[in-house]
Amino acid sequence: MSKKGIAILGATGSVGTQALDVIRAFSDKFEAVVLTCGSNGELLIKQALEFKPKSVVVTDPIQYKKVKEALASQETAVLYGEEGLIEAVQYAEIAIVLNAIVGSAGLKPTVTAIRSGKDIALANKETLVVAGELIMALVKEYGVHMLPVDSEHSAIFQCLVGEEQNPIEKIYVTASGGPFRGRKRDELLQVTKAQALKHPNWSMGAKITIDSASLMNKGLEVIEAKWLFDLAIDQVDVIVHPQSIVHSLVQFKDGSMKAQMGVPDMKLPIQYALTYPARFENNFERFNFMDYPTLHFEKADMETFRNLALAYATLRAGGNKSCILNAANEVVVGAFLDDKIGFLEMSDVIERTLDKVEFIANPTLEDYLETDRLARLITKEIIKD
Amino acid sequence: MSKKGIAILGATGSVGTQALDVIRAFSDKFEAVVLTCGSNGELLIKQALEFKPKSVVVTDPIQYKKVKEALASQETAVLYGEEGLIEAVQYAEIAIVLNAIVGSAGLKPTVTAIRSGKDIALANKETLVVAGELIMALVKEYGVHMLPVDSEHSAIFQCLVGEEQNPIEKIYVTASGGPFRGRKRDELLQVTKAQALKHPNWSMGAKITIDSASLMNKGLEVIEAKWLFDLAIDQVDVIVHPQSIVHSLVQFKDGSMKAQMGVPDMKLPIQYALTYPARFENNFERFNFMDYPTLHFEKADMETFRNLALAYATLRAGGNKSCILNAANEVVVGAFLDDKIGFLEMSDVIERTLDKVEFIANPTLEDYLETDRLARLITKEIIKD
Repeated sequence: MSKKGIAILGATGSVGTQALDVIRAFSDKFEAVVLTCGSNGELLIKQALEFKPKSVVVTDPIQYKKVKEALASQETAVLYGEEGLIEAVQYAEIAIVLNAIVGSAGLKPTVTAIRSGKDIALANKETLVVAGELIMALVKEYGVHMLPVDSEHSAIFQCLVGEEQNPIEKIYVTASGGPFRGRKRDELLQVTKAQALKHPNWSMGAKITIDSASLMNKGLEVIEAKWLFDLAIDQVDVIVHPQSIVHSLVQFKDGSMKAQMGVPDMKLPIQYALTYPARFENNFERFNFMDYPTLHFEKADMETFRNLALAYATLRAGGNKSCILNAANEVVVGAFLDDKIGFLEMSDVIERTLDKVEFIANPTLEDYLETDRLARLITKEIIKD
Repeated sequence: MSKKGIAILGATGSVGTQALDVIRAFSDKFEAVVLTCGSNGELLIKQALEFKPKSVVVTDPIQYKKVKEALASQETAVLYGEEGLIEAVQYAEIAIVLNAIVGSAGLKPTVTAIRSGKDIALANKETLVVAGELIMALVKEYGVHMLPVDSEHSAIFQCLVGEEQNPIEKIYVTASGGPFRGRKRDELLQVTKAQALKHPNWSMGAKITIDSASLMNKGLEVIEAKWLFDLAIDQVDVIVHPQSIVHSLVQFKDGSMKAQMGVPDMKLPIQYALTYPARFENNFERFNFMDYPTLHFEKADMETFRNLALAYATLRAGGNKSCILNAANEVVVGAFLDDKIGFLEMSDVIERTLDKVEFIANPTLEDYLETDRLARLITKEIIKD
């Protein structure tokens, strides 16, 4: 059996390195064909020396030079920038493109990969948040698989295996509630970066950890789920579950619910996206009920965590609204991490950006990219004011 | 599309009447071909007049006469006894035989039905407890489906849909713990029939309700699960879950767990066994997290509820041991309901019976039936002493 070729966009991040762990563990089944990074050239060099991919792509110009020099004597080609990504994802050796790029930069390579007939393992939720309708139409047109890597969407995807003929009644996307669960607005005014970066259950990158604290991550996941599973807005519900053991649930039209569960660890959904529909035996930590004798569930507080309400509102408005939301959010999270705005201000700035950027009812890919660009500019202006 | 023909063995019981509700609700999809009862001839007459089956079977001789007279002018044939059951389950019009007979009397008709190529919807867990190895070999030989109706086994069965290629690592059979959960042996000495018949979550027949209180029901389910899903004994675990919302769980070799959930209501697993692999939309009550904000899990107390330990022990011993366990249990539950023995004595009598009945390592169907007969006699003698 020939090995399954994998391209990892964002190989040096949290998801990317864990995906390489899977490829290492099952080196008879997988091979890394393409690895890419933004600014962590040093790690990419190490990865390239170990996995000997056909090419690496670096999007930061200075890092590109460094990697190019370090790998000069290797057979691995070193490509640069978005053009490099676009070229590399089309290689015939690739079966699955794992898109673990942070933010909307993941959009164009994903589109190219789909058009080249590659299955997509999607950790870059912004791809579906920004342009879900367009992307899922392409997935259908080119007959590829869209394999979710987010633990919540992987959970739903796993629950749907074998149920293709049975329509979904609704889904519950679980949310840990983040480090500020249960707090009210006046308690969140003075929240610091360090507090927001302490997630109770999940170890993740900085952007997604802040998004988890602000519930924007859940908002983005609701949008992602709506497109991924082709649901109406009111079929997607959020339930806060502080233990993060039940990763999400599906309710079918006969009332039966299926949940996927396990310890909170991204390794499993990453592995499953690569091995689907098979499951490979591993030594990941197993869930033990004695460690979690009680599982809690509660409603999400959308008045305190306004980002979640904003996300639902952009879904209802349609068009380029979720794209604006996502772009504005990327900027405000950056500003919060740079201590330029407070925790609660993030929602306010996003809301003002949503009001200011022109609404486009039926955007093309170019419209989405232009909306993204414009929304970032306007968000930055609002923050400066 | 022709209708799916259903035979309901035990049509007047709790499972049987709910199965008829499903057939009534989806009368364009199903038809009742055979209905049978033990002693509730009156209800069977009503059912026969409504559903107009090809035949009814009555196993009680006095009730048989009554039903025969009442249906004299109908096209429905009225058959008698085990021979009647054996004849009726073979009708060509039958696709699924729902076996909801209480106790080991369900064994022979099930064997006949499998040999006639019928799918089996199994509510009669004793069939697999008594002769699981033999029955599952027949299921394989004749290429029929064994569709579980017990909520726990239905849950596992639902979680396995689409996962045929992925081996099970272990399963968790959930147990409500019954009305006496948390009590110790000295608190159970004076337990009354009325207390034991009050199940906290499930509305069921008397035999199974007592079995739930004594955890024998869970023991029988462990044995059933072992055979149904072809597992080693240590792959079957019991976890007490007082809310009865998570109906059971499967853990795969990659560590991922799937659970099937919903309000405690037999209507769903009954419907699913008839509609599998489809799910039919219905108006059954939906689960709402706000009604169950907390789900608890705890270890089963096998020292207090010795029946569960006895069940595991008979599985380990193999042969006709589980058959003895089941027969002895049917007798002791009857004796407890007749106020002849106490709640805790049930386990003691079962254990003594297990020691007394001859062990047969590789029993035939006849051996099982003889073991069943003998074990009942010996249990009755022990009770009389």
